[in-house]
Amino acid sequence: MRIDSATRDQLQEWEKELSTHYQRICQHELSLDITRGKPAADQLHQSDGLDGILNGDYRAADGTDTRNYGGRNGGGLEGLLCARELGADILQVPTEEVLAGGNSSLTLMYHAVLTGYLFGFAGNKPWRELQSPKFLCPVPGYDRHFSICEQLGIGMVNVPMTETGPDMDAIEEEIKKDQGIIGIWCVPKFSNPTGVTYSQETVVRLAQLAQIANPGFRIFWDNAYAIHDLEQQINLPGIRAASLENDTADSVLQFASTSKVTHAGAGVAFVSASTANLASLKKQMHAMTIGPDKVNQLRHSRFFAEFTLLKKHMQKHAQILKPKFACVLSQLESAFGDSDLGEWEKPKGGYFVSFNTRPGCATAVVQLAADAGVKLTPAGATFPYGKDPEDRNIRIAPSFPPLEELDTAMSVFILCVKLASVRKKLEIL
Amino acid sequence: MRIDSATRDQLQEWEKELSTHYQRICQHELSLDITRGKPAADQLHQSDGLDGILNGDYRAADGTDTRNYGGRNGGGLEGLLCARELGADILQVPTEEVLAGGNSSLTLMYHAVLTGYLFGFAGNKPWRELQSPKFLCPVPGYDRHFSICEQLGIGMVNVPMTETGPDMDAIEEEIKKDQGIIGIWCVPKFSNPTGVTYSQETVVRLAQLAQIANPGFRIFWDNAYAIHDLEQQINLPGIRAASLENDTADSVLQFASTSKVTHAGAGVAFVSASTANLASLKKQMHAMTIGPDKVNQLRHSRFFAEFTLLKKHMQKHAQILKPKFACVLSQLESAFGDSDLGEWEKPKGGYFVSFNTRPGCATAVVQLAADAGVKLTPAGATFPYGKDPEDRNIRIAPSFPPLEELDTAMSVFILCVKLASVRKKLEIL
Repeated sequence: MRIDSATRDQLQEWEKELSTHYQRICQHELSLDITRGKPAADQLHQSDGLDGILNGDYRAADGTDTRNYGGRNGGGLEGLLCARELGADILQVPTEEVLAGGNSSLTLMYHAVLTGYLFGFAGNKPWRELQSPKFLCPVPGYDRHFSICEQLGIGMVNVPMTETGPDMDAIEEEIKKDQGIIGIWCVPKFSNPTGVTYSQETVVRLAQLAQIANPGFRIFWDNAYAIHDLEQQINLPGIRAASLENDTADSVLQFASTSKVTHAGAGVAFVSASTANLASLKKQMHAMTIGPDKVNQLRHSRFFAEFTLLKKHMQKHAQILKPKFACVLSQLESAFGDSDLGEWEKPKGGYFVSFNTRPGCATAVVQLAADAGVKLTPAGATFPYGKDPEDRNIRIAPSFPPLEELDTAMSVFILCVKLASVRKKLEIL
Repeated sequence: MRIDSATRDQLQEWEKELSTHYQRICQHELSLDITRGKPAADQLHQSDGLDGILNGDYRAADGTDTRNYGGRNGGGLEGLLCARELGADILQVPTEEVLAGGNSSLTLMYHAVLTGYLFGFAGNKPWRELQSPKFLCPVPGYDRHFSICEQLGIGMVNVPMTETGPDMDAIEEEIKKDQGIIGIWCVPKFSNPTGVTYSQETVVRLAQLAQIANPGFRIFWDNAYAIHDLEQQINLPGIRAASLENDTADSVLQFASTSKVTHAGAGVAFVSASTANLASLKKQMHAMTIGPDKVNQLRHSRFFAEFTLLKKHMQKHAQILKPKFACVLSQLESAFGDSDLGEWEKPKGGYFVSFNTRPGCATAVVQLAADAGVKLTPAGATFPYGKDPEDRNIRIAPSFPPLEELDTAMSVFILCVKLASVRKKLEIL
């Protein structure tokens, strides 16, 4: 189907056919959901051994009684040493630069933004004292990142994503013209939602930004999918090494968690940063908590006693996820491979497929799908303030539903894309 | 020993005797610690059945798969229904007014203060927009409460504690003269550190404060020791009922946790508040987290399947704690019962004994004890900014050390009190 070269008659005929088809689908009263990047039950099941793994022995290898406040090796606030080692393995950084937190890396990111906003990192001016503090937001991106900025009144500047990461020319230009830019959100591997992994050049240029940016500038490196490869392991160039080479180590804050490794929302989150940044973070967190849940940290350390066990565990996830991604991608390819109806990346890991409709169609697609019983992430959700300027991007999350449901949902999705595209074209003809 | 009626000669003789005794003790090279309100290992052991209690069944009674994001009955942000029911039992409030959080009530309090400070509760002006926002701080009190205010630059006004709770006359006076008062910290049962439980009159007068205070005024009701009775149950008058009667329900935020019930720092925390307050809190928390660790919430719900089980569990704690409190109180009584060297409350629960030296002696006592190998909570820690204006208060935490160590530590403590008191008197004579 090629809309731009179709005649009005052809379009009208398509609209009629597609509408009829759509009406039939609506009568099926489907109730399907591909909105959320949630692991499926069989994925979660792989980690059910966590409960009970301690077998009555709550003492960590370093002697810390995880059942009590405090502990050895930094004790409370940094988290358990063996949990920090796990985080260090995932993020490929030294253990002493890692803090193991509670169940959510989003929470660690929130507190990192709060630290910058209220108190300033490493002796820099608190962002709230700047006239107009702003984050750069590669789009499409992760809505929860944007919500943090929105809540604190931190401005957001859209930057387009490319196949190698965010558009670095645009980023450097923004920073040069506006010293109010004090941060950037990055999901560097299997980016949410595009699935792109940043290239070596992108990582190096990001690491160099602190040389031209406000001294308080920080890169929020949300490595949520660090070990979430579907096939062979994709190598994300290290931002730590690049920042050390460029003498900009203080500009980087890295995050990861086991949320899509073990049980979603019941795992362990990590932040890695320079000594100066960690000191600022700990100062903020000291007023808020005695420390994270060390018992659960110990469970995770025991469950992944060696990094090879973690890698094998992630392969099991991949085996479950692969047919789902294949289903989405093959349906898209056969429906739109030879069309002018949409574009998408082919991610090699992560949790999403990002689909761009023709301009001005995404909202209509989501609405049509909803009316046919297929719930999609709201159009615009992948942009700051929920506003997709071109109304194009839709995030597809294949992980949660069983394969047959996903297959049905994708058929409905494709029909809705076709219908909305034809109607839009007729409208503007 | 009565210092005020002693002659200089008598004092000098005492000083000599006590110093000799103290020198002998110092040679023992003790290493004892009665600083922290930490449960002892045998207390923690009572909850070791938590790990493994799920027995592979991660599904809550309402059908929520606790291993995944979200859930039924409010799902993510409010926490698991059965965990909220546990919190409702502890706080004696309706389940729908309870939110079950992560591992720390301190964290919930921090976010509640943050909500008031940055965004305002229930449509009220954010505290940061007031000229000089302040909390009332009954003293001595809990240092972590004061740290939250200090970090956010919220002023603190000391209010003396009495045997029935904070001095309500002083509180009402402060509020009448200063509309910048926007909060008060309360540990209403077995107060940290005095052990006092608020009287009916105190609770009612607190519930009435919102009638004269700034509309944004909030009572932070940290009911940390709600079920931590040593003997028969002490009844804390309900602030919720009192606030409903006075049409001030929005002025109350209640907190509790299982930190000193199951494993310290690995339990579940609760906040209870009016619908309007909970909505404000959830709005703030939405940007920060998908939700709390529901797996651990489910463990706690299963472990305390009925409230009677929780009560029995607390009786086991009491059996372990009672001899320790008895040790502290009997040593204090026999040393200072007939003296002018100090005053203390006799708590019927909680985790602390609060001791007031003669004015100007607390710092010296803590230092002497430290040099003799007995670590005490720093003098001043129970006051805002760490400043005890009379340098009198010392918080004794009997729970953590074994009984014999506690007994030795108390003997050293008593010797240090005597020595510091005599020296101080000689100095000012």
